[in-house]
Amino acid sequence: MTKIKALVVGAAGYAGGELVRLLLQHPAAEICGLVGHDNAGHRLDEVSPWLLGLLPENVAMIEDLQLDKSADVAFLALPAGISAETADELLRRGVKVIDLGADFRFKDAEIYAQWYKKPHARPQLLPQACYGLPELWRQEIAACSLIGNPGCYPTSVQLALAPLLKAGLADLSQPVIADCKSGITGAGRKAEKHLLFCEANDSINAYGVAGHRHTPEIEQGLGRLAGEAASVLFTPHLTPMSRGILSTIYVHLRRSVSQSELRALWGEFYADEYFVRLLSPDVWPHTRWVAGSNFCDINLKLDERTGLLVVCAAIDNIVKGAAGQAIQNMNLMFGFDEKTGLQQLPMMP
Amino acid sequence: MTKIKALVVGAAGYAGGELVRLLLQHPAAEICGLVGHDNAGHRLDEVSPWLLGLLPENVAMIEDLQLDKSADVAFLALPAGISAETADELLRRGVKVIDLGADFRFKDAEIYAQWYKKPHARPQLLPQACYGLPELWRQEIAACSLIGNPGCYPTSVQLALAPLLKAGLADLSQPVIADCKSGITGAGRKAEKHLLFCEANDSINAYGVAGHRHTPEIEQGLGRLAGEAASVLFTPHLTPMSRGILSTIYVHLRRSVSQSELRALWGEFYADEYFVRLLSPDVWPHTRWVAGSNFCDINLKLDERTGLLVVCAAIDNIVKGAAGQAIQNMNLMFGFDEKTGLQQLPMMP
Amino acid sequence: MTKIKALVVGAAGYAGGELVRLLLQHPAAEICGLVGHDNAGHRLDEVSPWLLGLLPENVAMIEDLQLDKSADVAFLALPAGISAETADELLRRGVKVIDLGADFRFKDAEIYAQWYKKPHARPQLLPQACYGLPELWRQEIAACSLIGNPGCYPTSVQLALAPLLKAGLADLSQPVIADCKSGITGAGRKAEKHLLFCEANDSINAYGVAGHRHTPEIEQGLGRLAGEAASVLFTPHLTPMSRGILSTIYVHLRRSVSQSELRALWGEFYADEYFVRLLSPDVWPHTRWVAGSNFCDINLKLDERTGLLVVCAAIDNIVKGAAGQAIQNMNLMFGFDEKTGLQQLPMMP
Amino acid sequence: MTKIKALVVGAAGYAGGELVRLLLQHPAAEICGLVGHDNAGHRLDEVSPWLLGLLPENVAMIEDLQLDKSADVAFLALPAGISAETADELLRRGVKVIDLGADFRFKDAEIYAQWYKKPHARPQLLPQACYGLPELWRQEIAACSLIGNPGCYPTSVQLALAPLLKAGLADLSQPVIADCKSGITGAGRKAEKHLLFCEANDSINAYGVAGHRHTPEIEQGLGRLAGEAASVLFTPHLTPMSRGILSTIYVHLRRSVSQSELRALWGEFYADEYFVRLLSPDVWPHTRWVAGSNFCDINLKLDERTGLLVVCAAIDNIVKGAAGQAIQNMNLMFGFDEKTGLQQLPMMP
Repeated sequence: MTKIKALVVGAAGYAGGELVRLLLQHPAAEICGLVGHDNAGHRLDEVSPWLLGLLPENVAMIEDLQLDKSADVAFLALPAGISAETADELLRRGVKVIDLGADFRFKDAEIYAQWYKKPHARPQLLPQACYGLPELWRQEIAACSLIGNPGCYPTSVQLALAPLLKAGLADLSQPVIADCKSGITGAGRKAEKHLLFCEANDSINAYGVAGHRHTPEIEQGLGRLAGEAASVLFTPHLTPMSRGILSTIYVHLRRSVSQSELRALWGEFYADEYFVRLLSPDVWPHTRWVAGSNFCDINLKLDERTGLLVVCAAIDNIVKGAAGQAIQNMNLMFGFDEKTGLQQLPMMP
Repeated sequence: MTKIKALVVGAAGYAGGELVRLLLQHPAAEICGLVGHDNAGHRLDEVSPWLLGLLPENVAMIEDLQLDKSADVAFLALPAGISAETADELLRRGVKVIDLGADFRFKDAEIYAQWYKKPHARPQLLPQACYGLPELWRQEIAACSLIGNPGCYPTSVQLALAPLLKAGLADLSQPVIADCKSGITGAGRKAEKHLLFCEANDSINAYGVAGHRHTPEIEQGLGRLAGEAASVLFTPHLTPMSRGILSTIYVHLRRSVSQSELRALWGEFYADEYFVRLLSPDVWPHTRWVAGSNFCDINLKLDERTGLLVVCAAIDNIVKGAAGQAIQNMNLMFGFDEKTGLQQLPMMP
Repeated sequence: MTKIKALVVGAAGYAGGELVRLLLQHPAAEICGLVGHDNAGHRLDEVSPWLLGLLPENVAMIEDLQLDKSADVAFLALPAGISAETADELLRRGVKVIDLGADFRFKDAEIYAQWYKKPHARPQLLPQACYGLPELWRQEIAACSLIGNPGCYPTSVQLALAPLLKAGLADLSQPVIADCKSGITGAGRKAEKHLLFCEANDSINAYGVAGHRHTPEIEQGLGRLAGEAASVLFTPHLTPMSRGILSTIYVHLRRSVSQSELRALWGEFYADEYFVRLLSPDVWPHTRWVAGSNFCDINLKLDERTGLLVVCAAIDNIVKGAAGQAIQNMNLMFGFDEKTGLQQLPMMP
Repeated sequence: MTKIKALVVGAAGYAGGELVRLLLQHPAAEICGLVGHDNAGHRLDEVSPWLLGLLPENVAMIEDLQLDKSADVAFLALPAGISAETADELLRRGVKVIDLGADFRFKDAEIYAQWYKKPHARPQLLPQACYGLPELWRQEIAACSLIGNPGCYPTSVQLALAPLLKAGLADLSQPVIADCKSGITGAGRKAEKHLLFCEANDSINAYGVAGHRHTPEIEQGLGRLAGEAASVLFTPHLTPMSRGILSTIYVHLRRSVSQSELRALWGEFYADEYFVRLLSPDVWPHTRWVAGSNFCDINLKLDERTGLLVVCAAIDNIVKGAAGQAIQNMNLMFGFDEKTGLQQLPMMP
């Protein structure tokens, strides 16, 4: 079988590294190029020594895209704005693009501009882009050449609430509260003081309170599922672990529903979804239980005292929240079984 | 100066160990007895070897209270129910009691019975007990001989919201949401599988969702501050760190208030409180920044999009959330300066 | 293709769980039974919830071996002594056995008895058992039905020193010093106080100094490679991480050899070994760089000032140090390519 | 009582922060100035927010030393070379100097030049400098105005071996092997990639093998204690914890000595030393058991099989290994009780 050729742009970061890890184990894809601006000219295993002996021999990191004449698909892990320009160039050459950044996640360039503090670099591409959350928008993705791969937090919140929203049971006249806890890979592989081991170890803190850029992405996603506008108060937290997101979500219900009806709703919605697991009653998702895998674990409980519903969802932020979901999108775009190359089991402990 | 004599019951646990750590550094108190049922006959430094060389020579752990004829005050870290019986016996002997468990936290024995699944062992003592949160109920505590030392989660939530509630600005017709993250000492020093390093490391999870026993304690505390009933949805999380609680709290406002008015409200309320620190705008509490200290760090932000207020509070769960607050109560009860023996700085990193 | 049927005895522990993780991803093997005495009657995913949805439907944990009439191979993760009895029974039924415990690691039942403080339960089986370190004893293993899978520490030390010992360059008149650091999975999934998160977090300590049972296994292994007796001083340390062993080994040389000659020696010895990686000069093994994989990373440096050679080797203690190596042995015993099902990449971070 | 005035140069680093933590709790000293080049003009609590509310009001960080006209003592946490120049200037003004760097640790400027790769900036000051390890050189320190505060690793190794060396029982014709494990604060508060949480978490590695600059300091210290030259092979390791050093040391004996004689030797040598604790037989030092304190915990075992002695010593690398020892030196230099301000108990967990 001829393998499809994949280009990874931004390979030296954590999401890029995870793309490499998954692509090297993918039976139907191979890496044809690695791009890393800061590390051009170096082999990736100099920067990420755990890849020693595992990379294709002829692949050095390059500064630009000149060499990748043969790519079928490109994964972009780039700063906002740069992504859009790079995607434009690649699409012109006939390369399908899966962008792990935010440039193609929004339908509305104005919302992007407002939260990302700059005009969108290629608004004309937005109509042809698809939001790459396969469990929700599988058919669109399969027919698309330009994917806005969802943010890590938005992935967990949308998967957590989709059954309720699609059933029209959420009372969206009240804000949804998403209290989310992320491992430190979420902040990227940047040499910044607050990300040092000794600053982050044994400590948890909120950040970006009432102002994080994933807020409008979550609102767009929930609104699309519900068919009405959704208002979200999203609080991210930096948690002393390498990987994982746990989202604890509080939502008002439109009418009285029992705990067992709610469980049935989630159970049916995800009955055929390999990557979403509804845990047993009273077993709550642990981020470590999905580490290294593409799973999203969910549980929920109706608080009868307040009438609010609490939903918890756990993902590995750089797998289902980034690289794994990107591969899942690639599988759909190229007609492979969606699970291809993504059946790594959780690594616990 | 004659030092007061303190008895620590349950010295081999984490809260008990912290009481010992703080009492050994207290200039006006000395340990006259250590009680630990499981370890009776052993010296505490056999069970907690880091105390080698630091304990008074004549203090071995004993199984019961027979030996402590001379105690002025007793700290109880015991299971629910046992505490009340022990406190009764000690009070009869003229020993002041600070109970770190839940037996004397509730005004209403019915609520206790409902959440702790058993009748209260000494309901007749409740009228004379005080809830030991010094920043809020200082005067009562000073005149009291029986203190219900607050739970770790309730301490953080009440300190976080007190300025708002006392000002009558919280809209309590809507539930308050308290999403709280605790270090693993919160679960005690029990040899249980889910508390093993390899189970808890690098992972976060919710537990006791919509059913944790600290819920009614928080509701009682908030209600008392506001002068009206409060409804709370409280979700605790087990976080991969040894110490610390971070509470992220979502509350509706009764009327429109500006961010600067809100900051001023907290600033004034805690202006004279040594142990409560309102952080600079946009600096959010980190649990590590209070580790080993009796501080409670707070910040807050009005989310103008949803109208909700977000308040974050961080404490060391076994200091301000247990042993430190207990010493603070002791200081009040014996007429010492409230800060005596409690000015350990945070140990960061 | 018909898959071989594998039985995992002791599936609820960490090594057992890792066997399950690897077997579920193995293309030529399938799990036919899971045995776990303490959890008989329960499904494994009740005890290890991260396996939800991944286990074969008809496999519950059973208390004994009655049901596994069809197994081709059994992996035993059992206490010393019990293993030998179970192996005996399985061998009589024609099941090949890979024992992850110590019962079949020693050629000399006396040494076993001396260090494990009891007579060997089936000394008559020792002559037919092979020591399962594939890189060193591949041919024997392929022809064998009873494998003593090496200990985690001994695996790392033997792979680290094999090139030197086979070349006759180690001066074994002096003791070899092996200072080894293990992640906490090495102590098993037992609810013991010293393994609690709060006891082990942020701390390192030596244990079993000058008396750990892996000492004679290392001595036997090094002696066999060198063709002469070896004396080893082995110090294990409990390190605050879930997985991984780093062994730092100090050895005297028989004659003067240069750093470059030594690198060449290791390079050649392991040139064809997929699972052993000699890192670039001045890049030292990190346990995380092999986490979840079957790799053993090695580097070495001659200390010209003292004439001693320092060798560092890192493995994942429950993969190359237990379950991964067991699968590697299974592959050899059944004629599969040795890497089959073992090409998981390291999960970093 | 008039307090002595202390200047902290390099206050924004981890050792500097620890000096501040300890000085703020010292009853006989007060901070008169904080110097931090990178952060000049900012208050220290902007860079280290856990100090909010704890710093003297009139102390901002300054770029140079112009303002500190009144200091009695200065603590320097500066790069090699800069320290010597700064110390020279301060000494001329009559300020006593405790240098936490290496500039005044060596008697021989040549050895310094060889290992630190540059000539010593003020070799003329070396004769008047004392090596500040109070348990070993107390009297010299008390009479000295310029202290070379020992390195963290060398402190632990010298305290571990002093009883043996002073008794003339070490066979120094063979190299001493010091296998040392350090928490990540040891690398300083620098924004470097390898110190990021996600790079260091859950991993251990050796570094600087056979070339670390603490080697000659350890050799000088051991040689001085033994009265003969000592050769040391020192291997440091980066360990996933914030604080702590555990040194495991292997040393040959000159003659046969029993385990009990050896324990007695250590017990007598340190009988009057508050900060050195010989643990009970078979209880091995844990770094966490000394965290935040100035203790050095020690245990030892004779390996009768090889004749080698194994000694383990644990310290908090930024307390006894840096700031705490510096305060201990200050106490000696100013005639205070050596323990003044240093009786913080270990913070465990």
